[in-house]
This record gives sequence, C-alpha cells and structure tokens, in this order.
Amino acid sequence: MKALVQTAPNTLVYRDEPEPAAMEGEALVRVEAVGICGSDMHAIHGHDSRRPTPIILGHEAAGRVLDGPLAGQRVAVNPLWVPMDCPFAREGRPHLSPRREILSMPPRPGAFAEWVRAPVENLCVIPEDMPAQHAALAEPIAVAYHAAHHGARLLGRPLPGARCLVLGGGAIGLAAALVLRQAGAGEIWLIEPNPARRETALRAGIALARAPEDGPPDGSADLILDAVGSAATRAASCRIARPGGVIVHAGLLPGADGLDVRRITLQEITLTGTYCYTPAEFRTVVALLVEGRFGALDWLETRPLSEGAQAVADIDGGRVAAAKIILIP
Amino acid sequence: MKALVQTAPNTLVYRDEPEPAAMEGEALVRVEAVGICGSDMHAIHGHDSRRPTPIILGHEAAGRVLDGPLAGQRVAVNPLWVPMDCPFAREGRPHLSPRREILSMPPRPGAFAEWVRAPVENLCVIPEDMPAQHAALAEPIAVAYHAAHHGARLLGRPLPGARCLVLGGGAIGLAAALVLRQAGAGEIWLIEPNPARRETALRAGIALARAPEDGPPDGSADLILDAVGSAATRAASCRIARPGGVIVHAGLLPGADGLDVRRITLQEITLTGTYCYTPAEFRTVVALLVEGRFGALDWLETRPLSEGAQAVADIDGGRVAAAKIILIP
Repeated sequence: MKALVQTAPNTLVYRDEPEPAAMEGEALVRVEAVGICGSDMHAIHGHDSRRPTPIILGHEAAGRVLDGPLAGQRVAVNPLWVPMDCPFAREGRPHLSPRREILSMPPRPGAFAEWVRAPVENLCVIPEDMPAQHAALAEPIAVAYHAAHHGARLLGRPLPGARCLVLGGGAIGLAAALVLRQAGAGEIWLIEPNPARRETALRAGIALARAPEDGPPDGSADLILDAVGSAATRAASCRIARPGGVIVHAGLLPGADGLDVRRITLQEITLTGTYCYTPAEFRTVVALLVEGRFGALDWLETRPLSEGAQAVADIDGGRVAAAKIILIP
Repeated sequence: MKALVQTAPNTLVYRDEPEPAAMEGEALVRVEAVGICGSDMHAIHGHDSRRPTPIILGHEAAGRVLDGPLAGQRVAVNPLWVPMDCPFAREGRPHLSPRREILSMPPRPGAFAEWVRAPVENLCVIPEDMPAQHAALAEPIAVAYHAAHHGARLLGRPLPGARCLVLGGGAIGLAAALVLRQAGAGEIWLIEPNPARRETALRAGIALARAPEDGPPDGSADLILDAVGSAATRAASCRIARPGGVIVHAGLLPGADGLDVRRITLQEITLTGTYCYTPAEFRTVVALLVEGRFGALDWLETRPLSEGAQAVADIDGGRVAAAKIILIP
C-alpha cells in the first residue's frame, strides 16, 4: 500500500509499505480521509519521544471496513484504545489509563496510509452519504468536546450563564467554540492572532472571533479553553479568568511559564489539563456530526495523501487559512 | 486598650491604643484568644502590600461580646466579611467577592488587642465552657475545611476510596489532615520536613506523618493539599498526583516555579487555588469544634499577647514545635 512515512525529523516520504494485518479483535479499514493534527506536526518536528521514526503518523481517520463484523460499513475510527478492565475505567475515565494506546504511537501504526488496522470496538458506523472528511473531524471535535465538558463540570454552573473564552483558532480551538455553542454557552469568544483564521471562525458562526488585543476584560471569563498552551496564552488565561473560573489547558508546547499562581490561589481559579476523550464522548460526537450540529464544517481543506509533505510545509509556513487539512489516500 | 502594633517591617510594639467603637451592625468583642497565622507572619516580614503599617494584625479570634444582640455571649469571630448582595454570593461563593473584607486588613483593625469590632453576623456563639484557644482555631480550620471540600468536589469521587496527601505540617496542613479524617478520607499522608512537627501530627492522630523522602509513590495521590506553596511542593504535587487527580494550592509564597504543565495536561491533573471559606463553612467548623470532631487540639501553645514579638521571633527561628501559637490578651 501507499503510505506517508516519517523517516527522520522534518522528513516525510510517500512510498510503498507492507499492508497491515488485522489482529484478534481488529478490522482493516480502507482509509478515505485522515486529518493532520497539531500532535502530528509536533512529532514531525522531532519533538515527541513517544513516536520514534520510521513511523506512519495520522490518527484522525474515517473509511470503509474490509473485514470482521462491520465489513462493508463506513466508519469513523476512534484512534484511542482504552482497557475497560482498568481502575480508571471503573472510575469513568478510561482515557487516563497508563495502558491507553493510540493509533500512530507504537505498537499501533497510524492512518497516513491506504489501510489501517483498528479494534472493532473503536469503529463508529456513519451513513453512506456522509463525507469522509467530515467523519475524520470526529477525533479533533471529540478532543474539544471532552475539554469543554470537563471544564464545565469543574466550573459547576450552567453554561448558558457563563462567559466562555477560547484561545487559539486552530482545529481544536474552533471545534471547542462550536462545541460550546452546541452546549448552549451564553457568550463565546475566540481569540486568534491570524486574521485569516478569525475570518474562518466568523464564517463558522463564532461572532466574537477577535484579535488578542480585543479580548474580553480582565477577570471576566468563567470558562477558558487554552488550545495553544504557550506562556502568552497561560498568562492571558490567568489574567482574564473570573474569580472562581476554570482554565482548561489543552496544549503540549514545551515550557511551563506564564501561570500566575498567586492570582490562581487568591481568586480560587482552577486550571485543569485535558487529553483525549472517553469512548462514549467519541460516539456522542459522531452522532452529533451525523445530525449536523456543528455547522457547515467548511473550515477544512482536502489534499491528496501523496502531497502530505507539502501540506505540512504549508502549515509550518503559516500559509493555511483552513483550521484543518485532511489528506485523501 | 493594650494592643500589639506592627509599626514597621519586623517591628511589633505592645502599647496602648484607642479602643475601637462598634459601627452600624457591629459589636465589640473582648478578645480572649487570637492565633498567629502564616499570613500575619508574611505581613510582619513586610511582604503584604494589602496591610500597610502601622497596623493591628490578627484575625483568628474568640472572646465575649460586649454589646448588641449577642451581648454577654462568648463567640468565635469569623473575620471575613462578605457582601451577600453580590453576584458571587448568588453563585454560592461569597468569599470570592471583590468587596470581601477581613479583620486585620484596612478598613478593619485586627484582633492582636484587648478589643476588636466585628459585624454581628460574623459572630458564632460558643458554649461557656469551651476554651477560647479552641474557638480561635475555627478560622484556620475553616480555611482547611474549605480547601479540602473544594478539592473533593473537583475530584468528583468519594473520599473514603481516595488517597489524600497534605504537604506541610503547620496549622493549615495539620488542620487539613484532621478535616480529611473527619470527612472519612481513606488514606491520609502528611509530609513535613521538621521532625518535631511530624511528632505533633502523629500525636494528633495522623499516622502517616512522614518526611519528604518517605512520601507515597509517584502518580498515586488522588487529592493533594499543598499547604506550603513553594516551588518544591508544587513539583512534588505534580509528580505524586495520580492521573485525574486534584491539587489544592493554598500557599501565598512568592514565585510560580515547580508546576509540570505537560504532566498536568497529559494526565488531566487539576490544580485549584483556595482562599478562605464561606460563612456556612465557618459556622459548620465551629459546630464540629464544639462537638470535639477534630480531636484533642493539643497542637497549640498559648502565650500572653504582651509577649507576641517574642512568639513571632521564635516562629521565625524554627523554635516552635506546636503547629499554632495563640496569644492571650
């Protein structure tokens, strides 16, 4: 099969690779669409020790099942495998298990390829007429869905009365704003320095898409989703959070600067990490996508998998207005 | 009246001061006992711009009411005045109001004195035979009570199945361990480098009072209360927290180092600040104290108010084994 293989930092090669073989409990999926995630970019840059080269990256996949009980069906692939016999699963947080595995991290090859193998329990059936690139958005939207609802639970008050702020207008940030809108949040701000991305967010229906200097007043936001995770966004989060507010930190950039621990303490601000989603959340997002609850989804761009290296270069060069590039094998 | 006045950084003078006059809605209280808090020490060292000199510090007070509807009764004084017509009060968190006021911070003089004025609504009646020094512990125990229960709410799972860790064996740390025990926590560790303070905690019934090198395994604590707030304790908190765990940060030392933002993110760890308590929590703690629910309370030491400067010097010099010094005017 053809696959996009990372052979070294910043080196992607489109080449022939052996086809994967489904193992016990797994099925083979013919990949129809696979998104490029920020964590793929991070690994491509050589900053993720969990993903040694050579490796096939890519974990935001949708396609058609070849074999097993779902043979012939089209599916969105939940790339996160979690053991349900783990203490964390019994507590309702299986995604925190130390035994969690994810497509594109050994021992599971990723989906920047014509075929990918995945556990049957991780496949969520979608309608025949659903565009594959929409189904491939299930994964990043599930990340945003979990982050927003985890933050809302910690906030402990109804979202319709809350001022919500999303920092970063990439796929996770934009998806978080759409999730918050779908959940009935009262007021949703999205802060993004890139004007093209602000335009994309406005078109997707986020009316308060603003530049960093035009954000809400200090001390005013109940729920903040930091989808960047830089020193600057952490500092902005601490400054703009309302007393008793919640900051959800979703970024994995290096460094830990920017947090105002004194204000966090005196104003009882809560900072929480967020990572992935539960299996139930992934299935919920697929169902909401099928119902069209996240709008027109015209904030993505498709390109052939064979041109993946150029797509990565364009993202690195800031030449992409879309919040997400989806590769078509 | 006699009062202990801070006239400059590190300078406490025991001298005559004008008696306070109760204002509308207030009563005068003859102070029978008043504790020295870490925040008093912080102000005495000249590190609290909210407390300009000359000032009468002290906010952990108990005594007998002179006038008003509670005249003649003995009371524990809730030093935190909160406006109940504020949005934060309507959300159940009046202590977060920007209009909150506290005894020992202008415009409210503190209780290192023979007399103190306080709002009548802040006075909690105690029995005639309750030692004043026990009632004076209501305030630090209320701080610990709020911190522990705030953390437990964010944790979202029952305390009896949780491993709890308290960092620091001063009054707030020890009180937090006692509050967790009273709330039924499954396993309670208290980490304190000073052997004399560990001995005090053991005597108070905290069996797992340990030195920092003998703490619980990394990645194992569900709920952590950092009652120190240093770079070292923040780093230890991030290391020892279990995935999905909660860290409650109660310290106000300068600096923000030590947090492991990457682990917080990947393991969905929640860090929350904590400050003071609600009026209902303060009254609950007074009731629990009256019922003897926090044990023998023999971890305090009393000294005359006239010797307050020496008490402060002994705390600074590390010559105090008790977790709390209470001054008797």
